[in-house]
Amino acid sequence: MAKHIGKQTMVFSSPVSVLETAVTVGTKEGAGPLGKYFDQILKDNMAGQKSWEAAEIAIVKQNLQLLMKKCTAKPDYILSGDLLNQCCASTYGIRDLEIPFFGIFGACSTFGEALSLAAVLVDSGGAENVIAAASSHFCSAERQFRFPLELGNQRPPTATYTVTGDGAAMVSNADKPPYITAVTTGKIVDYGVKDSSNMGAAMAPAAADCIYAHFCDTGRHPDHYDLIITGDLGYVGKDLLLQLLDEKKLDISKQYSDCGIEMFDRETQDTHSGGSGCACSAAVFGGMLYRKLKSGALKRILFIPTGALMSTDSINEGESIAGIAHAVAIESEAVKWNI
Amino acid sequence: MAKHIGKQTMVFSSPVSVLETAVTVGTKEGAGPLGKYFDQILKDNMAGQKSWEAAEIAIVKQNLQLLMKKCTAKPDYILSGDLLNQCCASTYGIRDLEIPFFGIFGACSTFGEALSLAAVLVDSGGAENVIAAASSHFCSAERQFRFPLELGNQRPPTATYTVTGDGAAMVSNADKPPYITAVTTGKIVDYGVKDSSNMGAAMAPAAADCIYAHFCDTGRHPDHYDLIITGDLGYVGKDLLLQLLDEKKLDISKQYSDCGIEMFDRETQDTHSGGSGCACSAAVFGGMLYRKLKSGALKRILFIPTGALMSTDSINEGESIAGIAHAVAIESEAVKWNI
Repeated sequence: MAKHIGKQTMVFSSPVSVLETAVTVGTKEGAGPLGKYFDQILKDNMAGQKSWEAAEIAIVKQNLQLLMKKCTAKPDYILSGDLLNQCCASTYGIRDLEIPFFGIFGACSTFGEALSLAAVLVDSGGAENVIAAASSHFCSAERQFRFPLELGNQRPPTATYTVTGDGAAMVSNADKPPYITAVTTGKIVDYGVKDSSNMGAAMAPAAADCIYAHFCDTGRHPDHYDLIITGDLGYVGKDLLLQLLDEKKLDISKQYSDCGIEMFDRETQDTHSGGSGCACSAAVFGGMLYRKLKSGALKRILFIPTGALMSTDSINEGESIAGIAHAVAIESEAVKWNI
Repeated sequence: MAKHIGKQTMVFSSPVSVLETAVTVGTKEGAGPLGKYFDQILKDNMAGQKSWEAAEIAIVKQNLQLLMKKCTAKPDYILSGDLLNQCCASTYGIRDLEIPFFGIFGACSTFGEALSLAAVLVDSGGAENVIAAASSHFCSAERQFRFPLELGNQRPPTATYTVTGDGAAMVSNADKPPYITAVTTGKIVDYGVKDSSNMGAAMAPAAADCIYAHFCDTGRHPDHYDLIITGDLGYVGKDLLLQLLDEKKLDISKQYSDCGIEMFDRETQDTHSGGSGCACSAAVFGGMLYRKLKSGALKRILFIPTGALMSTDSINEGESIAGIAHAVAIESEAVKWNI
């Protein structure tokens, strides 16, 4: 049984395990500092397909098949989403798998939403094993949200680089560490940022709101966690987040990082403010974070995928970019919530 | 606690109530045969806004505010989705409400997905009250998926008419009838239909698959239900569904209808194959079906919102239209599942 505590947090009293993960990424991600943690690195970001969208679909399908191969547990449901219009990478990537499907959309926070709802499904007893997944592709995202790559447009220093790949996790009642122990679901927060090349600034207020809520709701102190890691705020968003939390007298700087910062090498990979996209947090979690949780190098993490909710139409019609973030606590030991 | 039964069904042992609904619709929907069941009928489908997208956003916000006014229960979460790219109607409609938000996408099956996940959240103990909602707008959908209305294009007889509106339900642990007793979550089914003006044909196989799975999983007979009603198959999809189920030796014709058929008058409203869109099933449920369940005119229904998963890009790149459907059993008495 789950329990709602505080304003926006659920805690789980039955063990909800992350039983296995699988990550497939593109060439640039594979060449970055986290390359050794990924299961599959594409030789060609087209993945043998004729379009970028078809490539993303192929990556989704390959990665979910890999997860099911790595892990004998049969999934009851898949929760997945992506950045393509009408979440088509998930739809067509999952089509042939014949597994009941919940499509979700939280922009780049999608993997956090997927883990949260998968944990509720497993904890409720309604499912034994649920796949949580998210994908993105640099080329399909640039074409859809900004400019086709063929134009060779310059990108401003505040821009982040959409990660190509798919990250997936098997959430399970198998009672093996690590465990999802709590989720704090984010509200939409909009500080009026209208620059779609500065997503870090648009998302930082939502991340601050969600992280602050997590500590208020649970009564925990940041030192409970070895690592507090956001999804894709990048260098610009990181500074803003720490500043916003400082105004609320919450200091997480000692154990804070961002998946977008971890994904690429700042000096040599020319990604400006860092990595982004649904696959950014999904791949860093499924790769490095999960392996470190399994090995004991990390014992308790707060993982907060962040999303910028907008479309080209909303931008063209003058809307600002609304942010959202979902925090998921993952720990090497199950927690007896005494509430 | 929920329980997974058969291949793709969850049943709920704690009472999961639909405590209240709210429905706001456009002028044509208000003038149709179900007009008397809706809470708010717009005088102008622009809802006082400057664009169709902004109108849909305004409708979402107004309708969710109306639901919270009709019902004193404070929602812990909102689950909502729509057809606009990146689900922007939900994002901007919900932005100012300051309620934790899970964005979902299941095309026109979205309301079924929302009810299913809301039921799991409530049943798990993770939430007391959850809003499940979905919206669509004829004009924003036509512009996005087909042609701008200004072109005055003709629509073929197989085409359906996207419903303008928002339907929302407060799913709750308040233990008042009617109850959500079981959900059967659909798999993606694709029979290769490529005509985006014939969604009924694209979705019928998924609806047949989900309905058949529901009866296999639960062991129930169609006669258990007073009404078995799909989301927006329309006249074309209805015939195909009954034919597909006939091949599986399942006869639901006695108690079968479709929300898209119920929504508009065939003779006078010129909507060709019927109504469609996320708001079609959401409005018919929140309006007529919910009121009849409350009054006792209906005792047990199986409600199956249906979705066509595609985008203009997937169509342009030659993909077929993948279908999905989610079945939700709603009954005037809670069920003791003896499994």
